[in-house]
Amino acid sequence: MLEASSRQELREHIQAWRSSGQTIALVPTMGNLHAGHLALVRAAREEADRVVTSIYVNPTQFAANEDLANYPRTPEEDRESLLQAACDLVFTPDSNTIYPHGSDDACMLSAPPSLASVLEGEFRPGHFDGVVTVVSRLFNLVTPDVAIFGEKDYQQLLVIQRMVKDLGYAINIQALPTVREGGGLALSSRNRYLDARQKVAAQNLSAVLQDVAALATEPGAEFQDLESQAKKRLENYDLIADYLVIRRAQDLDLPRQGDRDLRVLAAVWCGKTRLIDNLNTNWACNHDD
Amino acid sequence: MLEASSRQELREHIQAWRSSGQTIALVPTMGNLHAGHLALVRAAREEADRVVTSIYVNPTQFAANEDLANYPRTPEEDRESLLQAACDLVFTPDSNTIYPHGSDDACMLSAPPSLASVLEGEFRPGHFDGVVTVVSRLFNLVTPDVAIFGEKDYQQLLVIQRMVKDLGYAINIQALPTVREGGGLALSSRNRYLDARQKVAAQNLSAVLQDVAALATEPGAEFQDLESQAKKRLENYDLIADYLVIRRAQDLDLPRQGDRDLRVLAAVWCGKTRLIDNLNTNWACNHDD
Repeated sequence: MLEASSRQELREHIQAWRSSGQTIALVPTMGNLHAGHLALVRAAREEADRVVTSIYVNPTQFAANEDLANYPRTPEEDRESLLQAACDLVFTPDSNTIYPHGSDDACMLSAPPSLASVLEGEFRPGHFDGVVTVVSRLFNLVTPDVAIFGEKDYQQLLVIQRMVKDLGYAINIQALPTVREGGGLALSSRNRYLDARQKVAAQNLSAVLQDVAALATEPGAEFQDLESQAKKRLENYDLIADYLVIRRAQDLDLPRQGDRDLRVLAAVWCGKTRLIDNLNTNWACNHDD
Repeated sequence: MLEASSRQELREHIQAWRSSGQTIALVPTMGNLHAGHLALVRAAREEADRVVTSIYVNPTQFAANEDLANYPRTPEEDRESLLQAACDLVFTPDSNTIYPHGSDDACMLSAPPSLASVLEGEFRPGHFDGVVTVVSRLFNLVTPDVAIFGEKDYQQLLVIQRMVKDLGYAINIQALPTVREGGGLALSSRNRYLDARQKVAAQNLSAVLQDVAALATEPGAEFQDLESQAKKRLENYDLIADYLVIRRAQDLDLPRQGDRDLRVLAAVWCGKTRLIDNLNTNWACNHDD
């Protein structure tokens, strides 16, 4: 497996592949790789001749009060995992490589407000601006044909798809279903913040989302009631919701009569750890507006 | 000469060239092509196998009070000029092609504040955000190896160079000297707003800038005095300056002791027409700070 941390090292490898006509898939990550990430890498293997995984904990997508400093960093284990997953190149830039002039006086991106100001964007202002800023840099540096993202970060996936459309990148965005533990907990690097008791409690998040997704498909379902009942259930397990909502899958807008493709999305606090999860529910929306 | 107005048409031509290993140069323009633009196209011919010229009057770089509606549009003449200049492809997108979701709820770029908030940026707030937003879209759509810009828009050139560095584009930015009429007036599409008398008056802009550039190289030159005297001279010709300044060529910052690479930049109103121009002056800066 090749390794690159500078722009020049990366570019030499990319150009060598390009000049022999090989296609490239990118898996952007913040490291601390788990089975969810590795599923993305394996999917990337099917999509292109070469697979690049980037590992970079991007400061501009963290707010000042968030867990940037404590975010788990496990470079040795990550390298070993990527080797096993037959990744071709791991790109591990530092902040000078991604932000050569820093981030206060640089060319930055902003995400589409309608998508980026709700849900995660409401509770993490500026988060998606940081995401599109770093992902566009990775796209320009790696020039992939395909990039793979997990549905675990569903809103991020929509934002990236819109960025690609808006900015005119010829990059195919592929989405993979969330990978879960036996108890249903969505894999996340932040799960390692949880102690044993919290981890058991956290399993109720996916269980409650599953119930909401099922109930939402019943005729006459009242979404607001479902949402508030679900939040109360979660409180019984000390899971405090920032939000738990049923939204249109395509744009996260409020469901309208006839919408069939809906998504249940939630963010909850489990102690000092913030967890997100989401599930789709294919359902003919018949409720009154 | 090929023509494309949609993303798909453009991409088909680009991919055909790419698959046969040809390199691509891009000349981004707003149309109404004059000899300055055509010099860029001819330079592009020397830089790559294929030359793409884009023609798009980008609304997001105009403020509400500016001349977007009246900006000269001459598509037939432009096509003929490009044919003569041996351009390979003219890309003429409409706004739905550049901004498929409009510009109010889209992924947008912002330019580095230190470069983009001074001079043109002070008098045209948001102008360079619009410039980087449209140029990044053109870069993603055309995927050029080289892009050519004129020094006439010197601050724009610096902003683009910084954008390329910040965002990690593997695109070589080439700059060409300003093309001038016999009387010294820098070629600009906005010159056609001038009547015959104004056009004669406007020639004094480059003449005054030349004098400032020469005087600035003299030992003990006081820049602020030179700047204010020059502005007064221009007023005699009814040329009213938004600014006329001597700045560091590399970053448009105030000159410091020992700076050798300086640039005189000005924007003036000639009636209702706003003209910009600039000249370099290689000079050892010895003035007191």
